[in-house]
Amino acid sequence: MQKRGEDTRTHILEAAQNLFSQMGYDACGVADICQAAGVSKGAFYHHFPSKHAVFMELLEGWLEKLDEQLLAFRAQSADIPSALLLMSGLMNELFQRATSNLPIFLEVWRQACRDNEIRREISAPYFRYQAFFQSMIDEGISEGSLKAVDVQLVSRTIVALGIGILIQGILDLDGADWQQVTRGGIELLIQGLTN
Amino acid sequence: MQKRGEDTRTHILEAAQNLFSQMGYDACGVADICQAAGVSKGAFYHHFPSKHAVFMELLEGWLEKLDEQLLAFRAQSADIPSALLLMSGLMNELFQRATSNLPIFLEVWRQACRDNEIRREISAPYFRYQAFFQSMIDEGISEGSLKAVDVQLVSRTIVALGIGILIQGILDLDGADWQQVTRGGIELLIQGLTN
Repeated sequence: MQKRGEDTRTHILEAAQNLFSQMGYDACGVADICQAAGVSKGAFYHHFPSKHAVFMELLEGWLEKLDEQLLAFRAQSADIPSALLLMSGLMNELFQRATSNLPIFLEVWRQACRDNEIRREISAPYFRYQAFFQSMIDEGISEGSLKAVDVQLVSRTIVALGIGILIQGILDLDGADWQQVTRGGIELLIQGLTN
Repeated sequence: MQKRGEDTRTHILEAAQNLFSQMGYDACGVADICQAAGVSKGAFYHHFPSKHAVFMELLEGWLEKLDEQLLAFRAQSADIPSALLLMSGLMNELFQRATSNLPIFLEVWRQACRDNEIRREISAPYFRYQAFFQSMIDEGISEGSLKAVDVQLVSRTIVALGIGILIQGILDLDGADWQQVTRGGIELLIQGLTN
């Protein structure tokens, strides 16, 4: 029974991922997802309270790999500046994922403008990355690889660089090697944090 | 006649601005704009080829003031680092404008995912700001206030900071004084550009 439940869950997630891309998030209803996944509405609502909950689980799935890579890079680096430079190498992958899911993000974000609960949920990963980089900067100051700085300011600047380069990459697809721009921007920032 | 034509144009723009906010960009048609502005469809199409053209003129109007302020700050500053710090003070205003028009931006951007012409048009202001900061960094290197750096990289990093802080401010409205974060981020960057 456990196994069949997991299969149903996976079918729903896979069907939703395809339909959100093909039809658009708004246009795709729970009935469409059920039909494509070959499950009943009862089975759907047994696993997910809403279409939005399916989106959130897809989003968490997309970010899971990024989280693992960030943690692995931090663990394998000799110090925080090296870890930050290593992390800039994740931009291309992040960029591909963001580009292919951009229309879905835009529609969900549009919903978040009208619905505070959705707004809170889609903001959660942002706060996680903010806290992650804050703890890295704290560690860099403790280990002496970074000078004493405002850790919140620096983590927000790092997150800003990431988001801002991602969006420039989307606006100007072939305009630059955006992974190299990320690395260069992080290098500039590290120079400001070490001199 | 000239005067009446300008009035019609202004009425259309004002009506569209209100309706895009109230109804949403997608839901609002040319017929709605004509009715609210009290003009005929013929008059509308005399002034604008499409609803998208109305949006682009509104966008250019919103950015015009920003452009003027950027140019004024550059003109009145003793050197490029001072000009960049002064410019960080524009974030709050930019932020208010971006927040109130966010739903419209998201819908137009969603359209740009399907339509390359719209994509090209909404990317145009981005390229303008990129070129503007590039010329500033060039000037900073010439005047000796900045060290010799990759000007494209630095202008992309500055634009990334601006976009990334704007989006964090939208996700985390009351989480920080975002204008102060912008100033702090620019200060860090300048340290990296001058040491």
